[in-house]
Parts: sequence; structure tokens; C-alpha cells
Amino acid sequence: MTLQYALELLGTFFFAISGAIVIRDQHNDLFGATFTGFVTAIGGGTLRDMMLGSYPLVWIGDINFVYSILAGAVVAYLFFKSLARLTRTLLVFDTLGISFFTILGVEKALSLGVRPEIAAIMGMFSAIMGGVIRDVLTNETPVLFRKEIYATACLMGAILYLVLYRFDVDRNINLLISSGIILIIRFVAVKYHLALPNFKR
Amino acid sequence: MTLQYALELLGTFFFAISGAIVIRDQHNDLFGATFTGFVTAIGGGTLRDMMLGSYPLVWIGDINFVYSILAGAVVAYLFFKSLARLTRTLLVFDTLGISFFTILGVEKALSLGVRPEIAAIMGMFSAIMGGVIRDVLTNETPVLFRKEIYATACLMGAILYLVLYRFDVDRNINLLISSGIILIIRFVAVKYHLALPNFKR
Amino acid sequence: MTLQYALELLGTFFFAISGAIVIRDQHNDLFGATFTGFVTAIGGGTLRDMMLGSYPLVWIGDINFVYSILAGAVVAYLFFKSLARLTRTLLVFDTLGISFFTILGVEKALSLGVRPEIAAIMGMFSAIMGGVIRDVLTNETPVLFRKEIYATACLMGAILYLVLYRFDVDRNINLLISSGIILIIRFVAVKYHLALPNFKR
Repeated sequence: MTLQYALELLGTFFFAISGAIVIRDQHNDLFGATFTGFVTAIGGGTLRDMMLGSYPLVWIGDINFVYSILAGAVVAYLFFKSLARLTRTLLVFDTLGISFFTILGVEKALSLGVRPEIAAIMGMFSAIMGGVIRDVLTNETPVLFRKEIYATACLMGAILYLVLYRFDVDRNINLLISSGIILIIRFVAVKYHLALPNFKR
Repeated sequence: MTLQYALELLGTFFFAISGAIVIRDQHNDLFGATFTGFVTAIGGGTLRDMMLGSYPLVWIGDINFVYSILAGAVVAYLFFKSLARLTRTLLVFDTLGISFFTILGVEKALSLGVRPEIAAIMGMFSAIMGGVIRDVLTNETPVLFRKEIYATACLMGAILYLVLYRFDVDRNINLLISSGIILIIRFVAVKYHLALPNFKR
Repeated sequence: MTLQYALELLGTFFFAISGAIVIRDQHNDLFGATFTGFVTAIGGGTLRDMMLGSYPLVWIGDINFVYSILAGAVVAYLFFKSLARLTRTLLVFDTLGISFFTILGVEKALSLGVRPEIAAIMGMFSAIMGGVIRDVLTNETPVLFRKEIYATACLMGAILYLVLYRFDVDRNINLLISSGIILIIRFVAVKYHLALPNFKR
């Protein structure tokens, strides 16, 4: 088992926890939490692969991802009260997750032969669409319309990866730098409440 | 035409009726009803097949399913007032429908070579996601977050099917037992308002 | 570049503008507008192609569609106030768009070998599902439950196209007539507030 594979499973585990935790009072039973955890964790990659016609889907081809999600849902269930208080910690995990999965999504798309522009979109989709689908299912305003710079940070990291990729930067270094920039943009945006300019200035 | 095929078309017909009936006052024209009936009836199987990369989708490969849905929408339209009063009858049909389609979904997934865990998830998705998509489109809280044990009953029946399948139980008997257990769990849950334990006990 | 290809790109551009413009106050930054413009413009065709298993998706295979959408989002962003006042003009563009894309959707489906009934559904989906997905993401009641005869107009045009196609009417003339009928039905419906009969008469 490579380090990357371990990180992918770990990221899936944390994504599932964060998806299960956000569930509201009215639909907070164990099934509901597992379902939202599941959707959050696999939604983005599933949409990406279905759009690219890449089968089998990651979690269908490798059952370990499903087990990571179930583990995340159980942990969320058992430690709900403690976890719900750890807003800051969960934010860190969420940000680590979207940073990492954005770049993996870009690489997956590139490996399927699409253009860089499409790979950037697919990278961002991989990271954010799970949360978007979860929000739609639970009738919340999707995260990408609410939060400070969120999807845009992913997109910027994806573009940086593609630029460095073009200049033949070593892959692991590129992964580190590009994920890192997403992480930094996102943390700075949250800390200083940065948002993109909007329409009715 | 085999008995099973007849049941599939009949189940689709009833699914379409139940989907068309739930539509709210504000969007209850014939098109809206047909659309929600259509989405309810084909949504689950369509998502399952798209996730498994199994083409053509059932209703695209066999037009009889589309005709069953149209028939259901017309019946719902013509007998709306009477049907809207038959809450209990509709509940029976809905439950018969999800029980039957869960197991068919499991079998379809198995036939495409996936692992049993995935087949169980796909069976549940086949039965419930049509209703979930309908609820999302009409801005309702999805059924799986509202009702007494619903999706969980499907999942339990799916798992039972897989266990009996492992022990080489005759397929038709297995279909009967596993669908039956979904039916029973669901009816007991509705009668006694059973729900899964939730987070903030 | 053929006339039709130019019209497809132009239609995508206008679809993206109309999708970006409708965004509400609370989520009107540049990213949100681009995202909703993107979803509106590609949603219908993407769903159609994913249901038919036709890969690569149009906008993944031809990057010009992505650029048309970005151009539309930027125009929407720069001229938001002026455009928001042009309700009537936007309605005309939206109607031109759905008329044209319905028939192209029918043709695409036919070219993939499906039955005419399926082609009609796919034509309608091509035109309307982008807007529906956008509405779901922004928590609005989907357009097809709100407006005067909308999806039904697309369906009627699609059926007319299929009838004329059967009678070997020249393709360009058929495109013109069938798109035209959608345009006319829709304008008449808006002008006289026509709606389909609903359930509780």
C-alpha cells in the first residue's frame, strides 16, 4: 500500500465524517448520516468519472473506499457531540480533503486524455460536488454559493498544477505545491472573510 | 411475457402513479405530474445503471416501460381525487414496489459482476433514488430523511438476498423471502412509528 | 465552420448568460454566476449524453463550448444591471435557445439509434434540464413546475420534427418548422398566460 493510497482512504474517511456531521436535527438517524457521509465522500469523484465515461467508478472497483466511508459514518455517529464542537478541526480536515482530491481529480482527468481546461474543471468537481450534492439532498443552499472563496481556491490550485505540469515539475512536488496553495487560499479566505466581488456593487 | 416482466411493468405503472400523486398544488398540471411520475419510476434504475456503466438504460432499451409510466400518469390525472384519498392503498403499492425493485436491482448489479456490498447498495438505490430525485426536484425534504425506516428496510432485504444467494437458495424463493422481509419491516415500522436511533439522544 | 456550429456556440453563449443572470442576490459572485451559467448551458446535453452512454460529452470533446460559456459569464458579470432589466430580451433568447437545442437533441438521440419516443424525451431534456439542474442547485422551484407551457412546447416541437422526419421532409426545413412551432407555442403561452389543465379543477 503506497502512501498516496493510504491518504486517499484517509481523505475519504474524513470526508465521510464531515458529511455525516453536518446533517441537521430533523434527519439525523444513523442511516441518514451514513447516506450523507457516503454522498459527500463519493459524489465528486463519481460525477467526474461518469462525465468522463470512466468505469468502474473508483468506489465500485475498490471496496476499501466503501469501508472507509462506513468507518467514518460510525465514528461520526459515536462521537457526534464531541465532533460537532470541533468546528475548527473539521474545517482543517475538509480543507485538507478538498486540496488533495482536487489535484488527484486533475490527474485522473489528464490520464483519460482530456484537455487541461477540462482537467481543471474536473479537479474542482472532484473536490466540491460531493458537498454540493449532499446540500441539494438535504435542502441546504449548496456550499459553493455560501462560503468564502471555496471552489475558486480549488480551481486556482488545479490551474497551478497544470502550469507546473507543463513545465515538467516533479509530480510529487507539484502535488504538494498545488494542494498547498489551495490550502493557503482557503485558510486566508476564511480568516479574513474574503469573497469574490459580486454583481450589485 | 414472463410473470416477472409483467410484474416489472406493473411495478413501474404503480411507481409512476405514486410519483404523480404526491405532486403539490402549485405544480399539478398534467405535464408536471407525468414528469414527476416518470422521474420516480425510472430514477433509481437509471442512476444504478449509469453508475455501473450499463447501457442502454432499461427504459431506453424497452419502450414498454415508458408506456407503463404514461399510463400511470394518465390514471393519476383522471382519478386524482379518489387516489389522493387512498393513502393507505398507495402506501401498500409503494412498499410492494420498493421491495420488488430492491431485489431486482441487486440481481442486476450482481449480473454485472460487482461485489455483494456494491450490489446491496445498488439494490437500495434502485428502489429509493427515484423518490429522492423527485423530492429534490420539487423542493421537498427527500423521503429517506423523513419516513420511518425506509431505505434501511431495502438495505436489510438486499443483504438477506445476498446471504441466501450465497447459500444457493432457489432464486424465486429468495426473491419472495427477501422482498417479503422488506415489506414486513416497512409495515411494522409504519404501524409502530419505528425509526433508527438518532444522534442527539 | 458551418452555420449550425456557429449557432450552437451562440446558443450556448446565450444560455450561459441567462443562467448567470438569474442568480439571486445571496450568491451572486463571479464564480457563482459562472457556475450557474455553466450548469444551465451544459446540463441538458450532458444528462442526455450520459443517459445515452454517448462519450465524450459535447463540451468535453470540443473546448469551444467551454469558452462560449466563459464568455457568457463574463458578459453577464460586466453588464449585469443592464441585462437584468432586459427581461423581455432574455426571454426571447431563452426561447430561441430551447427551440433550437430541443431539435438538435432529438437529432443526436436519433443518430445514436434510439426509438422516436425516446428521441422526443431526449430532445426535451436537452433543452430544459440545464435550467432544472440550476434551479435545484440554487434551491428554486424548477422552471418546469413554474412557468406557462414550457417543457410541453419542447415536447410538441420534438414530436412534430419526428413526424416530418418520417415523411422525409428536408432536414433544414424540418429544423426550421419544428423549432418555429416551439417558439410560437411558447410566446403565445407567455402572452396569454396559458397553462395546462391541472388536477384540482
